[in-house]
Amino acid sequence: MTLQLKGLLAGSDRPELGDACPIDRASSLVARRSTILLLREASYGTTRFDEFVTRTGLTESVTANQLRNLVSEGLLVKVPYQEPSQRQRFEYALTEAGHDLVPIVMALGEWGEKHRPRTNWLGLTHADCGARVHMALTCEAGHAVREPDVVVSLEHRQP
Amino acid sequence: MTLQLKGLLAGSDRPELGDACPIDRASSLVARRSTILLLREASYGTTRFDEFVTRTGLTESVTANQLRNLVSEGLLVKVPYQEPSQRQRFEYALTEAGHDLVPIVMALGEWGEKHRPRTNWLGLTHADCGARVHMALTCEAGHAVREPDVVVSLEHRQP
Repeated sequence: MTLQLKGLLAGSDRPELGDACPIDRASSLVARRSTILLLREASYGTTRFDEFVTRTGLTESVTANQLRNLVSEGLLVKVPYQEPSQRQRFEYALTEAGHDLVPIVMALGEWGEKHRPRTNWLGLTHADCGARVHMALTCEAGHAVREPDVVVSLEHRQP
Repeated sequence: MTLQLKGLLAGSDRPELGDACPIDRASSLVARRSTILLLREASYGTTRFDEFVTRTGLTESVTANQLRNLVSEGLLVKVPYQEPSQRQRFEYALTEAGHDLVPIVMALGEWGEKHRPRTNWLGLTHADCGARVHMALTCEAGHAVREPDVVVSLEHRQP
């Protein structure tokens, strides 16, 4: 029971998609543990370099490189701040593109909690009503959508 | 406007979470482009080694190593098959843990389509009603949940 395929995805002789596939484009960008941990921290409200280092356990060098990369990819924005009698520093905040990855990061947490449970328990709840929050595929008509009922279509964009 | 934090996540002196964080546990496993491409293909119905190689563009060696890794991590299961006058071979299918990652892979596609558009267009639709499919945070009371209304709680599991 897999997804249903249309367009360039149909047919068993389908070639490598490479850059034609937006899943590949996204994964080339985010498929790195350090990236996911920094996005997790940004979604938790961490803004400052030293806190990113402490809370992720990444080295200063990896943190600096990956923060720079996330800024250049447009997932974080760098904002100057200055405390009294200190030199100017920068803090980091999620852009819209960065915020759009937060549900994916939370869905990884939900998956980890279900399939790799340990001594700690991670729960996502809705602040307004207290009910548990899940990541789910839903359609614009409001239906919950099961995997076999998703049609994935890849097509040449109309000019 | 970030997530709301509770339990071990509350407090600005919060230390590195490391293995205590299920997001980290999941990302250590899936944060690799080759893994995401192989999961994409498995969700598209690809089962055989040669097809995984052709359709992902990964080398045979990377494909073999990563398929082995996905089997040992319990995301794929290996099933023997034999065609007439051929030696026994194996095909690969998603386990429940693997299927649970498919919405995340599709959400990466949705993100890539929105934030890294190219000449091809990826669309997800609901087979039953034709409406567009999105990945969204929803609560068990049926509300669509915005990022600032998600409470993330990490706690020691009760014995």
